[in-house]
Amino acid sequence: MGHTPIIQRLRKPVPPEMLAALKQRFDDRFSVAHAIREHHGRDESPYPDMLPDAVVYAQSTEDVVFVVKACAEHGIALIPYGAGSSLEGHLLAIEGGVSLDVSGMNKVVALNTEDLTVTVQPGMTRKQLNEYLRDTGLFFPIDPGADASLGGMASTRASGTNAVRYGTMRENVLGLEVVTAQGKVIRTASRARKSSAGYDLTRLFVGSEGTLGVITEVTVRLYPQPEAVSAAVCHFKTVQDAVATVIQTIQLGVPVARVELMDANAVKASNAYSKLTLRETPLLLFEFHGSPMSVEEQAQTVQELARDNGGMDFEWAKQPEDRNRLWTARHNAYFAGLGLRPGCRASTTDVCVPISRLGECLDEATRLVADASFPTTIVGHVGDGNFHVLMLLDSDNEQEWQESERLNEQLVAMAIAADGTCTGEHGIGLHKLDFMRQEHGDDVLALMWAIKRAYDPNNILNPGKVLPVLGNSPSIG
Amino acid sequence: MGHTPIIQRLRKPVPPEMLAALKQRFDDRFSVAHAIREHHGRDESPYPDMLPDAVVYAQSTEDVVFVVKACAEHGIALIPYGAGSSLEGHLLAIEGGVSLDVSGMNKVVALNTEDLTVTVQPGMTRKQLNEYLRDTGLFFPIDPGADASLGGMASTRASGTNAVRYGTMRENVLGLEVVTAQGKVIRTASRARKSSAGYDLTRLFVGSEGTLGVITEVTVRLYPQPEAVSAAVCHFKTVQDAVATVIQTIQLGVPVARVELMDANAVKASNAYSKLTLRETPLLLFEFHGSPMSVEEQAQTVQELARDNGGMDFEWAKQPEDRNRLWTARHNAYFAGLGLRPGCRASTTDVCVPISRLGECLDEATRLVADASFPTTIVGHVGDGNFHVLMLLDSDNEQEWQESERLNEQLVAMAIAADGTCTGEHGIGLHKLDFMRQEHGDDVLALMWAIKRAYDPNNILNPGKVLPVLGNSPSIG
Repeated sequence: MGHTPIIQRLRKPVPPEMLAALKQRFDDRFSVAHAIREHHGRDESPYPDMLPDAVVYAQSTEDVVFVVKACAEHGIALIPYGAGSSLEGHLLAIEGGVSLDVSGMNKVVALNTEDLTVTVQPGMTRKQLNEYLRDTGLFFPIDPGADASLGGMASTRASGTNAVRYGTMRENVLGLEVVTAQGKVIRTASRARKSSAGYDLTRLFVGSEGTLGVITEVTVRLYPQPEAVSAAVCHFKTVQDAVATVIQTIQLGVPVARVELMDANAVKASNAYSKLTLRETPLLLFEFHGSPMSVEEQAQTVQELARDNGGMDFEWAKQPEDRNRLWTARHNAYFAGLGLRPGCRASTTDVCVPISRLGECLDEATRLVADASFPTTIVGHVGDGNFHVLMLLDSDNEQEWQESERLNEQLVAMAIAADGTCTGEHGIGLHKLDFMRQEHGDDVLALMWAIKRAYDPNNILNPGKVLPVLGNSPSIG
Repeated sequence: MGHTPIIQRLRKPVPPEMLAALKQRFDDRFSVAHAIREHHGRDESPYPDMLPDAVVYAQSTEDVVFVVKACAEHGIALIPYGAGSSLEGHLLAIEGGVSLDVSGMNKVVALNTEDLTVTVQPGMTRKQLNEYLRDTGLFFPIDPGADASLGGMASTRASGTNAVRYGTMRENVLGLEVVTAQGKVIRTASRARKSSAGYDLTRLFVGSEGTLGVITEVTVRLYPQPEAVSAAVCHFKTVQDAVATVIQTIQLGVPVARVELMDANAVKASNAYSKLTLRETPLLLFEFHGSPMSVEEQAQTVQELARDNGGMDFEWAKQPEDRNRLWTARHNAYFAGLGLRPGCRASTTDVCVPISRLGECLDEATRLVADASFPTTIVGHVGDGNFHVLMLLDSDNEQEWQESERLNEQLVAMAIAADGTCTGEHGIGLHKLDFMRQEHGDDVLALMWAIKRAYDPNNILNPGKVLPVLGNSPSIG
């Protein structure tokens, strides 16, 4: 598939002595086999594969330090790899180098139930963590669609359906262990819930997409499993009516745990993929957490708001199995979309705007996709003003790719004009590099580059991601 | 009063041509009068006054740019000044230079009620903001004891009594306008509630205490005024019993809005200062926000937990005037403490630890203050693991100062050993510089210095604050 031109391989190949040293240290946890490199040179983005020269499977912070130091010594690119579920080309090896697979670092380092915190290795996935927590009465709420790794989620500042109530990785990472580009192991913060002790390095590494250091431990906040949970689906004639309901819900301070929008196409796709029989109109999917009484009350309030906005068929899912079926369907919306067009690849927009501007932005998005020559679905974390247009593209059709890029550009321009952002939760990777300038301007990018240059002067950490090249930015390699 | 030796005036005085240029531009908003400089060379810290050479009263971002550029051109120190309520020497002019008073920049730039956001100039105080919001149905929850400015609160990463429910400035600042050391005006983020678009400059400037840039606008999140509010006081035989109640409250997920501890001395001081008749034992002060039913239910749950931990005299304050009296007393705890020893000056500790360690830390603090030769009170934002020992010192007694410093050092060492921080909300300023190394280690400080050097290479922005001098840090001036 075509794409914004990416110049691959500006850097020298990994020298034989470095390959030998890695082989000696890691033995069968080191590979240059094509299949392994291919697996690590591909994510969920629409880009073609871009293979690293070698893959190392790390099992400890010491392993990470070894690889970082080797890359630093030889000036070789290093790309941390977790679950491989990133959507924007974050882990593609545009300069070759070493893919550092931390998926084997998936242990719990420390669980502190009284403090509602857990420290995990970066390869642990969100589902592994919640499985581990199941009998503790606690849970970890951040839930991107994929079963992403905690390290990857921290790196992209991920969120998901619970962010409206529980926040994103920005709010929920308490501290990180990081290996710097110089191979030093640092801890960004204590486990105190708040601190005013100097610059916020935790939040600096969160969202830096592996370009400032390699995350080797993540300490996150946990929450008590709510005493009661209920979910509800409500159908609307128009997306506008659904959005009005959301805005009023937020403004009333109803502590809704989740509120998700699906357009008629997304509902249709989910009916087919997840074997549901939802009416194929725009809908909102709600979840309420709290005491039984508070959940009842929240649901009552929202039901009234929905009715005032023409909501139809307010349906309850009080049984865990019904709830899980609905939310699994929502989490599988991406794969349901793919199911609309067998063999396609998806490109996903991720704009996020202040919710007062959400109605007009969704209107514009709906207008734009109506003219698209490929199938689309729209799903949204509407409580946060964030929505995704999933564009289902024929992999071999360059014209469709160009059209999807234009559509994305139009949505991003609209979001930035509405005081929003090009990405609410997926990150920049390669795909949104061009939007960074538009969103932030050169002076802000210069401040970001200043940090990159100070932390990684030889540009070995996931080079070419997050920050577009400016006049005064370092040349690659 | 004695203090850790601070070497004042290593920098050249402000050159006459720069003074003339400032006078010409700002006329009567520029001053070198001793009384004005004295007012700007003093905060609520126990340090002696350290006067700037000149004071400028800014009224616009353009004013700030002008002063920053003048200081940059001549290599002169610049210290942003808001409400002057900082506690750790943040605004003392240890190198002289210009105090940039932004208290006149206290306007609302934009209120967006649908989005629950407001953008204000940095000199607006939290009380001014809530007064402005009174009829909107919204409020801003962050409430340090003093009526601090929003710019100052952002700069120290402040919090207060509502943080357990609503978070700190870290979670509530959406974006900032900042004037850089080079005099460029940048905006750190859009008004989207979440974003993954690059490095988190917002959180980098929050808590940087004026050392990386001058904040000229602050966009914060607002919250719907709760439908119902109730407050309660509960007395305990011991601080331990109170802490156990708090831990259980948090673990059950009760969304308590405020939970504050006062020790018997603090209660005694508040009874005298605020004309209350509270029983002089350790107590917890609660506040519940929500629907009438939810508030009732939360209070019921907490009352039962308190009873199980030996809580006595659970008293309600449902009327706004009773509630306000209690919370005004809590906010005045600092001044109530001062009232215990007329003419004294206070030094305040600010450790914050994971709440599982709070009981032992408060035990140790109680043991230490029992032997102190000066009066003390203890108050705590215990839901966050943060508490303050207020030490009431004879201003002329060097020995008391030394003793208070040792006590602070012991508490900080204890907090750091408990995986906590030397400061939960007051910041570093001058007073906690020595603890930065102990808490973070040299490798982390080197990463912080790297940012300082990159953003402010000539070290003109609030020099000598936040970051202790390391071997490889720039010499001052």
